[in-house]
Parts: sequence; structure tokens; C-alpha cells
Amino acid sequence: MAADPAELVARAIEGDRAAIAKLISLVETGGAPAREAIALLHPHTGRAWSLGITGAPGSGKSTLTDKLVGRLRAEDLEVGVLAIDPTSPFSGGAILGDRVRMQDHATDPGVFIRSMATRGHLGGLAVATPQAARVLDAAGKPWIIVETVGVGQVEVEIAAQADTTIVVVNPGWGDAVQAAKAGLLEIADVFVVNKADRPGVDDAVRDLAGMLELAGERDWRVPIVRTIATTGDGIDDLWQAVREHRAYLERTGAVEQRRASRLRDEVRSIVAEGLLVDATALCQGEAFDALVEDVAQRRRDPYDAADAVLAARKP
Amino acid sequence: MAADPAELVARAIEGDRAAIAKLISLVETGGAPAREAIALLHPHTGRAWSLGITGAPGSGKSTLTDKLVGRLRAEDLEVGVLAIDPTSPFSGGAILGDRVRMQDHATDPGVFIRSMATRGHLGGLAVATPQAARVLDAAGKPWIIVETVGVGQVEVEIAAQADTTIVVVNPGWGDAVQAAKAGLLEIADVFVVNKADRPGVDDAVRDLAGMLELAGERDWRVPIVRTIATTGDGIDDLWQAVREHRAYLERTGAVEQRRASRLRDEVRSIVAEGLLVDATALCQGEAFDALVEDVAQRRRDPYDAADAVLAARKP
Repeated sequence: MAADPAELVARAIEGDRAAIAKLISLVETGGAPAREAIALLHPHTGRAWSLGITGAPGSGKSTLTDKLVGRLRAEDLEVGVLAIDPTSPFSGGAILGDRVRMQDHATDPGVFIRSMATRGHLGGLAVATPQAARVLDAAGKPWIIVETVGVGQVEVEIAAQADTTIVVVNPGWGDAVQAAKAGLLEIADVFVVNKADRPGVDDAVRDLAGMLELAGERDWRVPIVRTIATTGDGIDDLWQAVREHRAYLERTGAVEQRRASRLRDEVRSIVAEGLLVDATALCQGEAFDALVEDVAQRRRDPYDAADAVLAARKP
Repeated sequence: MAADPAELVARAIEGDRAAIAKLISLVETGGAPAREAIALLHPHTGRAWSLGITGAPGSGKSTLTDKLVGRLRAEDLEVGVLAIDPTSPFSGGAILGDRVRMQDHATDPGVFIRSMATRGHLGGLAVATPQAARVLDAAGKPWIIVETVGVGQVEVEIAAQADTTIVVVNPGWGDAVQAAKAGLLEIADVFVVNKADRPGVDDAVRDLAGMLELAGERDWRVPIVRTIATTGDGIDDLWQAVREHRAYLERTGAVEQRRASRLRDEVRSIVAEGLLVDATALCQGEAFDALVEDVAQRRRDPYDAADAVLAARKP
């Protein structure tokens, strides 16, 4: 028996963990119940501060997130974590899920951890992540951490859609360059050089500082924090940097602009998703098969076939 | 003075390098000249064999590509290389471009190397890559290598859209798991464990073999090749594996199915792109600003706003 969205929302707002978990699944799945839930959740949102944490695979994002959660908990702040796991296109599920993540906080009622899959229907992740964050926001979590792998078009965009975006790199030749290649330089509000006990940490910091300077002046001077996530070294500095960035955005009013721009992107994504559903519906059936065969036989080119599909739409 | 697409196509088919370069820029840019060029190119395509090479940042993809190009050249085979560089959302251009890539082959007229940016207009990369490959195919390159970073939804999909997809991992605990997480397990036709002079190579091979077994039976048994790209060790084995995979696809006729399915995806992407252009056009102007303000003020939810946008379309 599926729970009523209205009832789930009412319970989630009271902080009911089971209701929060079910609502996230609901908004991930989409459809009419998701929409009903989102409409009910939206008026209760806008209070949480979201942190995006991103970096290359193996950079220590998960451990850093774990330690940052501990730091927030030390101040008795509740936190919701969305860990975006790239997944197999076959299995459809996250391979490393909640089970192996953040064992330290698994039994803490002040922490809600959820893994989300990056694959699924077209535009899925870009649309599903803000909805899941919305659930946590409405549920009264004052801090939300969204952790994604920092390579890939969609994944970088998701990390950038936070109030404060933290980019994690490691010492070692080229990591700063890799970060820049992945488009991480400009989305970073705070840089972390993790594994700062390894050789090359000074070079990494200098490289980042140089590349930030090259990227041009910004009102917010992006701090570069050194951490050793495994031991917790530097986590206080990171937490300080996050609070300073938050204070800066609040003082200047930039947070309102940033959030309005995010909502604008979200509405655009939903419009695009609606149109993509149309594309999937249009690209099937016998007439479509015949068009593809024409393309394969070089009787038509792909754009010509796409035009034919679009022209066949009902007005 | 812009060259005429028809003239560029005629010259590219003759193998003119400048014309090939200009045509790739043309199809990347899109618009009417691109469409004209693609229509003219398409009948001349279908002869090239495409190799997708993908793996995590730092796995040695570029060096491996470089050595594989050398191996192809040793057999006097011409090759076109498309290197997909994740780029800065600000600069809009590839940071590590052609200049620093594959110095060895820079002056070889049998090799055509082109870097492409992953960022740009919505759906840009997914649509632009097959077009650039089409230029190289029509220009008579018998082998085309498309190299992408193997993390991220769009990037993995591009790597998968090749006749033979090579996935590169490194020795070290968890690399096989990371590959699986990134969705690389099922798209691999050939696995490469690069940096095979490092400790843990046997473990990496065993992990991959185990995960491949878990993923289930396939007609093609995915080989796992050990390489040291920097020295060229194992490149002969890799080349052998690629040729065996090609022979398998050609013998079973699976290549026709694979290519038809790719053309089908391409047409669908173009349809989707056309619809996304609609989305961008719809999501601007004063009426849209007012809708976003409603969402920010919690008077509407984002789906409600998207509905309003879609409803306002002309019939």
C-alpha cells in the first residue's frame, strides 16, 4: 500500500526519517505522486544551506564529507547528505550505496544519508537532485551536503548548484590542471587540497592559486584549504571557510540571486525534461524504424530524419 | 570569407587536411551550413572503424591513444583522433588542446588529431561528436579513435558509441570498482589495465574478471589487456584484441546492428536537441522571469511554473 504524498509530506516536515526516505524515492521516481509531493514541500523550503562537494574519483570526497558531517554534528547541527553515485547503465542502481558510506554516522538520528544513482531516464539526475534536496530542506535539515564525482557535464552542474561549492583536489602534478579541465575552477567557492600529508601539497596550492588568478578577479576570494580527511586535519579550517563563504553571500545578498538563478535553471530543466519525454515518444514505432533504415542505407541523413520526426508531430 | 560547405566536403573527401579541420569546426558550430555539410558527407560514410577509449582522469588514456596511433601507423593505416577534453564553463575552450597532445604524430600526414570541448550548448557534445567522426569517415580515415574521460553521463555514452570500446583502468585497490561505478563495465569491449608495472596489477585483473563474470554471460568474452603505455608494452596485445573484436563483430553481423542502433540514438539526440532549443527559447523573457519570481516567493512550485511555460506554447 503506497503512502499518500500529503501524509508523507506532513510526516517528513515533522522529521520522520522513514517518511523522508520514502519521499526521496517518490520524487526520484517522478510522475503524479512526485508532483503532488513537490507542490506540498516547496512552501516549506528555503531555509537549508546546501554544500556541494566534488572532485575526481579517489580524491577523498566521501571521507571529507564524513568528517564534515562530524564537524556539523559537533555543533549539534543536523545534516542531510545526498551522495550521487555514478552507476551501471545495466543494474540501474548505485553500486556503492548507503551501506558502505559513513558508517560513523549510520546510527546518528541527526544525520540523514541517501545515495542517488546518476543514470536513469534522460535528464534524470539534473532534475531529481534538487527535488531530493527539497525534501531534506522541508524536513528541517539546516545543512544539506550534495556529493558528486567532479567529472562529467551533468555531475559538475549538480555540484555547482549549491549555496557553497567545495572542490577537492589532491597533491600531485597535474591535479590542478585536471580540475580546471573538468570545469571545476570556476564553480569552486572553496578549494580543498586533500591528502595534504603527501608530497607536492605546496605545489598543488600554488598551482591552484595561479590558476584562480588567471581566471580573473571575483568578489569572493576563493580560499584553498589543506586537509587530511582520514585524520580530520584541516576540517576546522574547512568548516571556517564554509561559514565565511556563507556569511559573505548573506551579507552581500548574493545568496538570493544565486538561489533565484538556481530555481530558474530548475524550471528550465523541467521544461527540457518535458520536451525530452516528447522526444522519446516521437522516436519509436514503425515509421521511426523506417526512417532509421533510410539513414543506415544513406538515403537520408540523420538531420533529415530528425526533421521528418518533428514534422510528423501533431500540431 | 567562409568556404562553401559543398566545396569543403569535396576537398575533405580528397583528404585535404585544412578542409577536414574546417568541416569539423563547421559541424561543431551547427546551423544551416553544418546541416548542408552533413547531408553531403553522410553518403560517403560507413567505412571507418571507430574505437572509443575511455577511463578515469590520469589513467593514461592519452598516452595509450598515442601509442595505439603509432601501432596503426606501423601498419600504414591512417587514423583520425577526436580527443574530448572537459573544459571550463567560462573559457568555453579546451584547456589542453591539440598543441600538447601527441607530439609524436603532430607532423605525420597520416594522422589527424582534433580536440573537442565537452561544454557548450545543451546536448552539444552528444550531437557534435558523431558529426566530427562523420567528417573523418567521409575523408577516408579507415580508423577513428574517440577518447573521452570515463566519468560522467554524457562522456560515458559517447565512449560507448564506438564499434570497439576500450576502457582503461589502473592497478590499485578499487579501480575496478570505480570503473563499475562509472558504468564502464558493460560498455567495455576490451579492458586495459594500464601502468601494469605498478603493484596490484594481478589484483586489478582478477577484480575486473570477477566483475565481468558477475555482470553475466555475453557472446563476446571481454579480454583484459595489460599495458605500460609510457613504454609501449602490451600495445601489440591491445591491437590484437581490437582486431579480434572487429573480426567478431564482422563475422556475426553484430556490427550492422550496433551501427543501426547508434544511428537510431543519433536521430533521437537530434530530435531531443531540437526540442531543447525550444526549451531555451521558451525559458526567457518577462513572463518567464515573473514565473521564476513566483517560484522563489513560494507562490508556485517549479513543476507548476514549467507547466505554465509549456502551456503558453503556440499550438
